[in-house]
Amino acid sequence: MSFTVTVLTMFPEAFPGPLGVSLIGTAWREKGLWSLETVDIRGFSTDKRGFLDDTPAGGGPGQVLKADVVARALDSLPASPRPLLYMSARGRPLTQARVREWSRGEGLIVLCGRFEGVDQRVLDARGFEEVAVGDAVLAGGEAAAMVAIEAAVRLVPGVLGQAESTEVESFEDGLLEHPQFTRPRTFEGRDIPEVLLSGDHAKVARWRQEQREQATKERRPELWAAWLERQAKTTPRD
Amino acid sequence: MSFTVTVLTMFPEAFPGPLGVSLIGTAWREKGLWSLETVDIRGFSTDKRGFLDDTPAGGGPGQVLKADVVARALDSLPASPRPLLYMSARGRPLTQARVREWSRGEGLIVLCGRFEGVDQRVLDARGFEEVAVGDAVLAGGEAAAMVAIEAAVRLVPGVLGQAESTEVESFEDGLLEHPQFTRPRTFEGRDIPEVLLSGDHAKVARWRQEQREQATKERRPELWAAWLERQAKTTPRD
Repeated sequence: MSFTVTVLTMFPEAFPGPLGVSLIGTAWREKGLWSLETVDIRGFSTDKRGFLDDTPAGGGPGQVLKADVVARALDSLPASPRPLLYMSARGRPLTQARVREWSRGEGLIVLCGRFEGVDQRVLDARGFEEVAVGDAVLAGGEAAAMVAIEAAVRLVPGVLGQAESTEVESFEDGLLEHPQFTRPRTFEGRDIPEVLLSGDHAKVARWRQEQREQATKERRPELWAAWLERQAKTTPRD
Repeated sequence: MSFTVTVLTMFPEAFPGPLGVSLIGTAWREKGLWSLETVDIRGFSTDKRGFLDDTPAGGGPGQVLKADVVARALDSLPASPRPLLYMSARGRPLTQARVREWSRGEGLIVLCGRFEGVDQRVLDARGFEEVAVGDAVLAGGEAAAMVAIEAAVRLVPGVLGQAESTEVESFEDGLLEHPQFTRPRTFEGRDIPEVLLSGDHAKVARWRQEQREQATKERRPELWAAWLERQAKTTPRD
């Protein structure tokens, strides 16, 4: 059975975007390894005038997407054990571990918000998982949804084929990736690091590990602290 | 002068996606408040056969996007003080503070990677800022680029108009947003929290602040720790 992704959005025309290109797009359109459908929230107004939103209870700027509209859009889908995601700056950050769990399931249902957000009651009542992608505020959830969906779909068996590796990569063991270099040997006066041309596999592996540790330490101190903690637990003492 | 975004990508057809819809799309296509152009990296091979990539120096799976190809694509653009971003799982996480800085400038030049990455020498030589969006690995940088671009463009003056607020929102002061509610008063047996219907603005503000602190503490312990630290510094002692 293929991996089925359903996106609830006010802007179906934003899709597929990056989900329609390269190996991800081929795996969908030609190989049928996953599928993407969009549901236009605008069709589920409970109001004669077609309104989807209303003013925030308690006051404040902007408009809030109504709980009953989201519930009706969701209820238009067949019952399914697929996780429900709501893309939100209030969410827990997207992680590779969570993405890998999703990729082993039957697919995803992803709600893209707009306005000042969605009525919290429908998120709680239906068990939406609130997911944040990057510590920045967006105009809507569509771009964030594409990030989450692409991350999951690329791990669905067969999607990447032999063309790319999903083994040694950032976040899989808690360290960032090492830098990459390729021909030519010299580019604008900069050489490929000598060790990478040495043919000594053990030295290359050691250098890359050092680079991974250094990049993680510099760029992601919180991942580095977590990594050190895990190392301390797993390394046997003398 | 409008905010100009140039994306270097192997898949221009992935754009505009979410960047073409809603207020962000209108601000581009109708109001001219920002502009989006794509440059197809595939046109800049230095090789007769059109190759863009080569095997990683030092071995390993996959292919690496060549430094000279990226350099040629970049050099096809007029000189510009716009920041150069490279979307990468190795990057520093996207933050609202950085996004706000970008939104005050002339625009962005964004490189989307594919394969196992880009030759590090062109990133270093040209001063690309490596930016990560979510702790997950993508098939390419396009979806992540859309997140970064949308976050910056929505802060460009005039883009959101009066329709949305950029004042009180997640990350602006280091706390997540409070939950939102709107009519009807009862949804599937769940009521809007009483305090929000009280009309007592001070009580509403206090409740929302508590909600923000609680959500941040539960969902983003590292943001919570940073917030506590800032509070300790700015609160005068007895």
